[in-house]
Amino acid sequence: MAVYTDVGDADLEDLLKDYDLGAVLSFKGIAEGVENSNFLLRTEAGSFILTLYEKRVSEADLPFFLGLMEHLAGRGIRCPLPVKARDGQALRRVAGRPAAIISFLEGMWVRRPKRQHCAAVGRAMAEMHAAGQGFEITRVNALALKDWPPLFEMSRARADTIEPGLETFVSAELAFLEASWPTGLPEGVIHADLFPDNVFFLKDELSGLIDFYFACNDLLAYDLAVGLNAWCFEPDNSFNVTKGGALIRAYEEVRPLSAEERRALPVLARGAALRFLLTRLYDWLSVPPGALVTPKDPREYLRKLRFHQKVESADDYGDGLHG
Amino acid sequence: MAVYTDVGDADLEDLLKDYDLGAVLSFKGIAEGVENSNFLLRTEAGSFILTLYEKRVSEADLPFFLGLMEHLAGRGIRCPLPVKARDGQALRRVAGRPAAIISFLEGMWVRRPKRQHCAAVGRAMAEMHAAGQGFEITRVNALALKDWPPLFEMSRARADTIEPGLETFVSAELAFLEASWPTGLPEGVIHADLFPDNVFFLKDELSGLIDFYFACNDLLAYDLAVGLNAWCFEPDNSFNVTKGGALIRAYEEVRPLSAEERRALPVLARGAALRFLLTRLYDWLSVPPGALVTPKDPREYLRKLRFHQKVESADDYGDGLHG
Repeated sequence: MAVYTDVGDADLEDLLKDYDLGAVLSFKGIAEGVENSNFLLRTEAGSFILTLYEKRVSEADLPFFLGLMEHLAGRGIRCPLPVKARDGQALRRVAGRPAAIISFLEGMWVRRPKRQHCAAVGRAMAEMHAAGQGFEITRVNALALKDWPPLFEMSRARADTIEPGLETFVSAELAFLEASWPTGLPEGVIHADLFPDNVFFLKDELSGLIDFYFACNDLLAYDLAVGLNAWCFEPDNSFNVTKGGALIRAYEEVRPLSAEERRALPVLARGAALRFLLTRLYDWLSVPPGALVTPKDPREYLRKLRFHQKVESADDYGDGLHG
Repeated sequence: MAVYTDVGDADLEDLLKDYDLGAVLSFKGIAEGVENSNFLLRTEAGSFILTLYEKRVSEADLPFFLGLMEHLAGRGIRCPLPVKARDGQALRRVAGRPAAIISFLEGMWVRRPKRQHCAAVGRAMAEMHAAGQGFEITRVNALALKDWPPLFEMSRARADTIEPGLETFVSAELAFLEASWPTGLPEGVIHADLFPDNVFFLKDELSGLIDFYFACNDLLAYDLAVGLNAWCFEPDNSFNVTKGGALIRAYEEVRPLSAEERRALPVLARGAALRFLLTRLYDWLSVPPGALVTPKDPREYLRKLRFHQKVESADDYGDGLHG
């Protein structure tokens, strides 16, 4: 649920004085995204999204996020394009918050991805990785390996209230990942949160990638590991090798993985599962009792992580991979 | 915050099989309304709102609400028009809830109404009252005089935690209203909740009335009394006679008030203020601590009610009224 800051008609009128978008036809808060306030804005010039960046997004990162979308859109990636005001700047201030108008992408996200959706995402991710080359601003991943132990500390004391033994399990996994995390793999700009609700489709054709507000520089294969967690498990948390194979094969048609990346994939997938386990655990324990928003169950990622622990090689992620 | 039920791409596909609206182009939950789940739906045929009726709306009332919008729209009132499926019915079921697709109205609601907005609302309300004549379904007002005492009972024990003396004040006001409530005034279909967020404007022209889910049969002048409370007070809770006069005069250009209605207006305005005081009081005391949604302050309506208590005649509501 995502309108934290109210934007009135007067605020909007003030903002639009800086643009050539014509008169406002409609303006509605959108119940999507958990980090920012988003509004669907229709003017005589078309449809747009107005985003107000709330406190969970660092203002210092906005030139990276907005610049990245512009960079990618300019290289053929279907993603929102920040709309510049007459002064050439996309970043504004609205109702006291940093804000930007971005282009509206048609499409709908898919609740139950099928094999062909996974393939489309694999291809789009690799295209994004290729297009990100040459983008000159960098951003450190704020939710990387070194950030997981302090994140866990915030939930540690109550971890076992979620599932008995969870504290010991996570501690052991953190130790394993610190000892096993790969180095020297290809790096670049990754999306880092390419979940189904951030990918739009129109009639089974991928129509766009959205929400680049976790994007950062990190191992490219880590993005693929996030994708395996996000797209290739069934509702019962069993891994679907048909979907995994489709995702990885489509990725490799654009950017083949090196032998080192393939070897590292199970460890990266464990790390990605742990990252989402830890943020969900924190959110779960932080929500006040009786709140309207139900946080996502962290145990989903515990189950996924247990699957990755049993994986012996990247080939286990897909039918007939690298065979 | 207003998406209580998630509607997936498969749910939507199933629904749209019953219509001739073409393919879906986009679909987003809207953060507006507190009773229902609302989604902005764009298809090849245009823009629509999909509403899922949640538990606070009685399913038995839906033929009244949907029929009323159709009746009014057919008589030139700018309001949402329920879109009928191929079987001639607008009422469907989506994700287990009753649901309807209604037409999308352009415009934005005005945070700080000016005199001309109040005049536009007065005229539109009277036009709606006139157009409602002949609508054959009826609905009893579920928040009328007789409903206020039991509503107050739910908050009574904690009323003084909001403002010392509130319990005694409300009890006395209820007794006064029960003794003074007018009878024999003209009745008809009223909106009963025509607040600024339910009225859209495009460049200061009224473009539509929305949210008919409190509409019912009641005294027409009671709707005007709600309007005086909703549109004609300043942020400091002082009454603005310029706005009040504009609202009433514009209303009377379409439907002049009888002498009895004028005489009853101060009592009706007290009742309307109490009705919103009581629902806000209940909501305020019901919200769990730490919830993301901040309920509206009931004391706003306590201040408004105190103003109405000092009003001697309808003429006090506007500059040069009936003088």
